[in-house]
Formats: sequence, structure tokens, C-alpha cells
Amino acid sequence: MRTPPGISPSDFSAALAEFAGVVGKDWVFSSEEDLDLYRDAYSPLRGTDEDRMASAAVAPSSAEEVQEVVRIANRRSIPLYAISTGRNLGYGGSAPAYSGSVVVDLKRMNRIIEVSDSNYHAIVEPGVSYFDLYNYIQEKGLKVWLDVPDPGWGSLVGNALDHGVGHTASRFRNHFDAHCGMEVVLANGEIMRTGMGAMPGSKTWAQYKNGFGPIIDGIFSQSNFGIVTKMGFWLMPEPEAFMTCVVEAPRYDDLHGLVETIKYVENLGIAPGPPEMSSPLLAAGGDTKTLVDVFFNGPPKLDKHHGDLIAGARLGYSKALEDFGLENKIPYWTVTLTFYGPKKVVAAQWEAVQDIASARIKGATFRSGEILTDAKDASDKQLIYPQNVGVPNLEFFAFGTRAGGNPQTANGHMWFSPVIPQSADGILEANRVFEEAQRTIPVLKNLPIFNLRPFSLPSPFYERSFLFILGFPIVDDPDVNKAVIAAFRELIRVGAEHGWGEYRTPTIFQDQVMETYSFNDNVLRRFHESVKDAVDPKGILSPGRYGIWPSHLRKKS
Amino acid sequence: MRTPPGISPSDFSAALAEFAGVVGKDWVFSSEEDLDLYRDAYSPLRGTDEDRMASAAVAPSSAEEVQEVVRIANRRSIPLYAISTGRNLGYGGSAPAYSGSVVVDLKRMNRIIEVSDSNYHAIVEPGVSYFDLYNYIQEKGLKVWLDVPDPGWGSLVGNALDHGVGHTASRFRNHFDAHCGMEVVLANGEIMRTGMGAMPGSKTWAQYKNGFGPIIDGIFSQSNFGIVTKMGFWLMPEPEAFMTCVVEAPRYDDLHGLVETIKYVENLGIAPGPPEMSSPLLAAGGDTKTLVDVFFNGPPKLDKHHGDLIAGARLGYSKALEDFGLENKIPYWTVTLTFYGPKKVVAAQWEAVQDIASARIKGATFRSGEILTDAKDASDKQLIYPQNVGVPNLEFFAFGTRAGGNPQTANGHMWFSPVIPQSADGILEANRVFEEAQRTIPVLKNLPIFNLRPFSLPSPFYERSFLFILGFPIVDDPDVNKAVIAAFRELIRVGAEHGWGEYRTPTIFQDQVMETYSFNDNVLRRFHESVKDAVDPKGILSPGRYGIWPSHLRKKS
Repeated sequence: MRTPPGISPSDFSAALAEFAGVVGKDWVFSSEEDLDLYRDAYSPLRGTDEDRMASAAVAPSSAEEVQEVVRIANRRSIPLYAISTGRNLGYGGSAPAYSGSVVVDLKRMNRIIEVSDSNYHAIVEPGVSYFDLYNYIQEKGLKVWLDVPDPGWGSLVGNALDHGVGHTASRFRNHFDAHCGMEVVLANGEIMRTGMGAMPGSKTWAQYKNGFGPIIDGIFSQSNFGIVTKMGFWLMPEPEAFMTCVVEAPRYDDLHGLVETIKYVENLGIAPGPPEMSSPLLAAGGDTKTLVDVFFNGPPKLDKHHGDLIAGARLGYSKALEDFGLENKIPYWTVTLTFYGPKKVVAAQWEAVQDIASARIKGATFRSGEILTDAKDASDKQLIYPQNVGVPNLEFFAFGTRAGGNPQTANGHMWFSPVIPQSADGILEANRVFEEAQRTIPVLKNLPIFNLRPFSLPSPFYERSFLFILGFPIVDDPDVNKAVIAAFRELIRVGAEHGWGEYRTPTIFQDQVMETYSFNDNVLRRFHESVKDAVDPKGILSPGRYGIWPSHLRKKS
Repeated sequence: MRTPPGISPSDFSAALAEFAGVVGKDWVFSSEEDLDLYRDAYSPLRGTDEDRMASAAVAPSSAEEVQEVVRIANRRSIPLYAISTGRNLGYGGSAPAYSGSVVVDLKRMNRIIEVSDSNYHAIVEPGVSYFDLYNYIQEKGLKVWLDVPDPGWGSLVGNALDHGVGHTASRFRNHFDAHCGMEVVLANGEIMRTGMGAMPGSKTWAQYKNGFGPIIDGIFSQSNFGIVTKMGFWLMPEPEAFMTCVVEAPRYDDLHGLVETIKYVENLGIAPGPPEMSSPLLAAGGDTKTLVDVFFNGPPKLDKHHGDLIAGARLGYSKALEDFGLENKIPYWTVTLTFYGPKKVVAAQWEAVQDIASARIKGATFRSGEILTDAKDASDKQLIYPQNVGVPNLEFFAFGTRAGGNPQTANGHMWFSPVIPQSADGILEANRVFEEAQRTIPVLKNLPIFNLRPFSLPSPFYERSFLFILGFPIVDDPDVNKAVIAAFRELIRVGAEHGWGEYRTPTIFQDQVMETYSFNDNVLRRFHESVKDAVDPKGILSPGRYGIWPSHLRKKS
């Protein structure tokens, strides 16, 4: 049998028996077959001895059972690793950060506690997926929208805690920021509610975020200070209508005007959907945004001449390419915007955006979408990217497969995703630096990196900053994966040298990334460690998650 | 000389000399005259021995000096109490929670580090007031708006840390939520930056909120875990236009339709300004909202008959009053909404709101405002409440004075401000409960309570919940103030019985309020205490602030 480090088989057997006493023996897993399911399906360490493994998994059905499980683990010094549904593929999946931990799988805690289409919120347990909540809302005919990430099978709680993002109005896309109220099981087994949940009889747990005194919810995200067992989320009222439209900019230098337009209209709240940038002129070259474009609009028109021009472009630019675009009316850059609300507001917002863009981008052109009213229908008919109207699905997994237009298919992927400034200069600088890194750094050469060549446009999920997301495929060949890991580590290093830090990273890179947030001798990490020692002195909760280790496992630097 | 509890005069003199060595002797204050200035100007304990007093004040000019001051205090176990500008009158002012603490007055740290009207943010030190930043923006001609609280002389940092609120678009009114990035001096004297500030060379400190790993900023608000020395804030792009309009509902029962309208349009983002409710029909009776109405629109038309009808209304209702209103076209309820953006969007949003309100409120009528474009000009001409367009001022202090229409003037006030559900039922229930409390609870009888009679409408500062703010005047008579304190304590108790918790409270009530957030044997407060002990083991930072005491001062319950 597998055991956690330092725990004898007999002690561990006794612990498993105790866990079974709490959750029932059917919900304690320790066979190799079962534990294989808790590996990270996208692990770059797949097929190697280093691949992170659970020593067992326990699936409690309630917060009370979580409390009991934690108490047992505390008494017996057994490391736990809590997952909601474990679907954060590309960022670590369901495998523990510290190999040998017992996975606490919260999938059975799938109660939808409350959904209001008067106050527009939901309170859910960690096992509730976007699909679950979406279906519930549809069945009850509630007039609220979810904000869903690319694949819809994940957990609202897990996604928010991992700082996941979605595709509707900016107010809702930052899933952690859109949460309101939390229930947490602490390392000592006590249960705590934050915000107004701490006030017995309060009906505003999911309505008022701040509560009284310190706002502590944030410390339970990307961390290991407690096991979250309930969360409230703010939802969007179902809008009367929505519309997706495109601003087109003809020239390379228009990138500046386009980004300034995006910032102005988004921060003023008149273009609430994610500003998805693309370059139809460069589209042949692997811009992931074009995967979505291709999905809806078919492949861009290309001939060999165009392809050669792209290949000759430096930082995405050549005069000849620009001329080709102007001649053939192919815009250098576009941004796709989505509007939500009453029809007349949607129409006015789009009109206003056209005015604003025209003032900032000489020769800007526009493609107006249709004002639509039925999210499900529009999604089914592929009139809109379903996630832009809160309809969960799994189409995103076509990415990486042949259906996604890849000549070589992968078994998984992982995302390098640093935060860069929201400016054209920021985009250009990131392209310059990473393109140069790939040309000059040995481990980066000859590796497939999604989205870097010929030019990468950033992801618009968060307001006010960009994520410069580059991807690596995970394949079956351990040597290739090893090279990919080395390349990823180089990218983290190069990014940090330029002040670009990861917003989230696969488990195996979390130590390295936390190390890059190094202001004042890594005081931030040391502060986290102080808190960790105080609230989980035996260090049983998710050791190592996001680079926070309990004192007995901490490397002395 | 005054000394902190347990510190001898000679030790304290030595400490003051050390402080002077850091900040210069002109910036260490210990005379009675100087220390009087650090009393809470609105203290209900004024003129009594219990009034909270500083033993000294120290005014560092930089974060480095704060670090040195904290190190000295740590070495000598001297309690500190940090204030930004100390202007949170009505909530404790500049007086320490723990009498005898040394006030660390950050007023000299008034640097505006950065303001961007491309990325729409500012980074400021704690001594920067709303006036300071507003003037800076005007001088530089930057195209950004502030969100300002009622009086504009306070600190952006201090207000946000105290969970203060403003008057423009919902995204910016929650001042803590609108912050991005923080620098904090810890109790051990180390300096820490949160979010992207922890990444050397990052340019996204004020652009990306979440950083990597746990989001810890919240724990430094309404607490005493560190001294915040810089904060970033998201600002609104200067809109082309703005407009304030009024939805009028004729009947008492329309309160339901009106509140549902507010929630729908605000949460959909199509009416971003604060939904200020009022009752013109009940306006004679002390509704604070009418102070603003009166300011702009003159006093409501009243005759004796109307006054008698109001007096006879129960929970704000009588059939005769409703009939009087219908006959004289005086709406029972109104909500004032403010729109920001391009003219055509502002116009379309208001049109859409009229459609939505008409569908929900039979016989709703509307008063359209003028579409205006110059915030300063509109404020100067009293065409709009200046704070609704981000123009700071001090007019609010007319409240409580004769200029505010009060027959009796006060020397101060304090606010009872519980969070109640955002629903008409919530408003009615709060009115019922507190009105009954005032009639039946001895200490509440015969006391002037601002805004309770004949009916109180809640404050709309926060999205998704209401604050049911009631006020008490502070006068010169200690007996009256004593009665007011007793009454306030009763209101806290009664509120908590109904699940309505304070969002913020004057210093002297913070222990009691924190006690009401009592889920699971006050586990939340006990969690805060664990963190406090870990990050400030000697308990030198602002002991007692928001009910968090260091271990040596903690009452064993």
C-alpha cells in the first residue's frame, strides 16, 4: 500500500479505518487503480517516478465529515490535499502538491444551497460544477446567468479558489472577486464562516462581502490555510439581449489605439464582455484566439504569398504584410467585444464604442453582430461562443486535438501565464522578450509553444491587466515532457526578470513561481508561512500548495 | 506626562527620544495641547475620563521611518495606533482604540506616487486626501475621476481600510474593493508588498489584484496586522457625460417593485450610480436622504394636513397618506439614479430603466435630468450632488448643523449602520424592529435618532446589500452622550438578534460588534487572534482595533 511520507503502513491502515468510520468505507480509496484516477491527467511528469501520487483519497459528503477527517489527520499528522472536483487541468489537476498526501475529494458535496434571481447570487458546495448549477438554473427557470470558464465541468468553488476566470461581463469574470461569503474547515477541525456568514441569522451572507473586521476570504485562495466547504457567488441578472461585435484596425501601429480603446470602454463599463484580440492578418501562425475564430468563422483566407509575408514579419510586423492587408481589406488587428443588457443599451454601447474607436484608430472598421436574446439557442446555433453567454460546455477540449486544427495532437497541455501590463507596449515587449528567449535559450529551441509565433496576443479575462498565455503540449514521451518542463522553468525565470509574474501555475512550478515574488527577501512568502504555522501548526493541509510549506517541510534558504 | 499602560515615564521618555531620532523632534508630540488634537472630535465619551487618549503622537515622513518607529515600539513594547489622516469622524476619528497608545500619524506621507489616465489608477500614500488627489488630477488635466466619500478631507488609504464608501459607479464605491496593491509595514518592522508589488520590476501593481498565492490585502483592513504605507486604487475613466434622473413610484406597496428594479438595473450594470431612495410623501419626518433633496430641490411642499397624515402613518403607511399623495401627485417613493458614459449610452440606459421600472411599478413616473458633461461646473452650479461626479467637498458637515435644517445643533454624530438584505421586506422589517425598539426599550425612548422616524430608507453605497444607517448626535452634555452610548449598544444587540451586523462602528463599540459575529463560538474572532499572535506577537500594533486584542490584553471569555 502507498503511505504518506513518515507514516507506517499500520498507522496508515488505522487512519484509513478511521476515515472509513466517518465517510463510509466505499468512500475511502487506496487501491492503485483508484489512486491512478487522482493523478494529474495532464502531468508533465506522467510516466515518471516523480509524478505526484495520492496515498489514498477520502470523499466526505458534508462539512461535518470534512471536520472529522481533518481532526483525524491532525491527530495522526497525515497530510491532506483538498480538491473540489480536481478539474483544473493544465494547472495541476487532482494530484497533491506533496506526493503521498491523502486527497480529500469534495465531489460528493454537491449541494446547491441557494440561488436567487432577485438578489442574483448562489451559494454552493465545492462539488457543484458549472454544469450542475447551469442545469439547476434552467430547470427552475431562474433569470440569472453564470460566468463559466472554458470547460464547464469544473467546480465553481475550486475554480474561484484557483483564481480562475470566465467569459461574460468583467464584473463576473474574476471568479474569486465575484464570490461573496465562505465557509471553511480549519486545520483544527473547527468550522468558520466569513463575512456576514459569521452573524447568526444573517440573510446577507452572499450579498455583503466585507463583513466586520479583517476581510480574510482571500487568504483561502491559492493556499492551504483551510478547506473551503461553501461559497457564495454574485451572478449576472439574465440580460434581455446580447451582441458580439468586432472592431477592426488596419495598421500595425493601431495596436496602441486599439488597446487604449479597450481599456477606456471596459473600465467605463460600456463594453463589459472580454475584449478578445486577434490578428486576422497573422492568423495562420498559431494565435490561439484564432481557434475560436476558426470555430465560428472558418479558417482565414490564406495563400502562399500571405504565408510568406507572415513568416517574414518581425514582432508581427512587415511593411509588405501591412500593405497586403490594406489591399485585401484584412485587418491587422481586431477586438471582439460582447455587450449585455436591454436591446437599446446594447445598441447604444456598440454605437458609442464605434465613435470612440474611430477617434483613436484611423480607418477603423466595424463588424456589427446580431442582437440576440436566447443564450442557449445562440450557443446551439454557433452564433456566439457559448461561454460568452454563460453556457457551459466542453468544446474547449478540442484545443490540442486534431479537431482543434493541430497537426500533432497532445495528451494534455499546460499554460505559462504571466501578468503583463495592459498596453500595446506591454504586448510588444512580451512578444520581443519571449520570442528572443525561444530563439536564444537552448532548452526553448525547437519546442512547440502554443501561441508564441508569429505573434501572441494576450488574454482579456481579467480587467485592467493582460495575461500573456503561452502553452505547451504534454505528450507520452517523458523526454519531450522533461524538455518542456525545463523550458517552462526558463520562461518563468525570463518573465520574472521583466516583472511579469504568473497568475497561476501547475503544481510542480509553484515553488519556483512563489520564489519570484521576491520583494524584500521574499517577505510575502515568509508572511504566508507565519500564518500557516499559526493556523495549521502541524502542517496537515495541502502542504506545498502554491509554495507554502509547513515548517517541518520547509527548505531553509 | 502621559504614558502607555505599563510603561514608566523614564522608559517612555527614552522611547520618545528614539522616535525623535527617527522622525525629528518636531514630529513627536507629547504636550497636552497637541495630544488633545488626537482625541476623537466626535467622541461620545468627550469630557469624561474614559475618553480615549494618545500618550504621544509620532509623524513619520516615509515608510522607512515607519519601519524604524515600529522597530523601536517592538523593542520597547509600546502600543502604537496608526492613522492615515484620522478623519473618520463618526467612526472613531484619530483616537486610539487602546488609550495610551502612541498615535502614528501618517499625514506627512502624502506622496502621490503615480496616476495613470491610460490605465486609470493611482498609487498613493496614506496622507493623501481626496482633495489632494483631486487637485493633482485637475492640475495635470488627467482624464480620470475619483470616487469620494461625503467629506473630501479624508485619506484614500484610511477610508478604504475602514471600508468606506463613495457615490459614483458601483464598481468604485466600495473603496476597499476598488483598491489594487498594497505596501505594509509589519509589526517586526519589515516592509511587504502585496499582489504584483511583490514581483520586482512589475508594472502591474495597481493593475492586477490577485497576485500569486493567497490574497492577503483584506486582512489589513479593519484590523491591526500591519501599517499600510501605500495603496493602489482603480479609477473611473472620465466619462463624456453624466445624468441624474428620478424614478417615482406612486403607492406604498411599490416599494417592492422599486427595490427589485434597483437590483436588476444595478447588477446588470446599466444604472451604475448609487440608487438613492427617498420618500417625498414622508419627507417631512427626518429622512436623511431629504437633506440632499432639500439641498438641491428646496423643502418639500407640506401643509398641516400632510404633516398629520405622516404622523399617523404606521411603518410609513396610511391609506389616507397614500390617497393624499396620489391626489397631489407626490410619489410615495423615489429612487435617484446616476448614469455615466457617452451621451448616447447615458440616454439609452435611462430609457431602458424607464421601460424596466414601468413593467415593475404600475403608474411609475419619471423625472429626467439634463445630460451634463462638466463635473466641476455641474457641482458648482448645484446641478448635481458633487460626490456623484467625484468632486470632493465638505458640505456634508452641514449635516448636524443649523444649515442642515436641524432645530438643535450637535457637536458630532455617530452612525449605527447595520447591513440588511437588499429587499423591500428587508427595509420594512428593519423599520418595524427598530421603530418598536425605540418605542419599547427604555434607553431608546426620547432619544433623537436621525432617520428613524417616520420611516427610514437605507443607504445604497454598497452593491447588493443595504446599509440601514441611523445616527445619533453627540452633544456637550455627558449625561446625554451616556444615554446615547447605551442606546447604541441596544441597537447593536437588537440588530444582531435579527442577523443585521454592523459594517463599521465607532471604536468604543468594536468589541461588542465583533462579539456579535459569533458563529461557532466566535471562531472568526479567534482566527483573527491566531493571526494577530503570529504576525504581531508582542501586540504593539493598534491593540483592540476592530475587537482584535493581542494575547496579553485579551479578555478570557
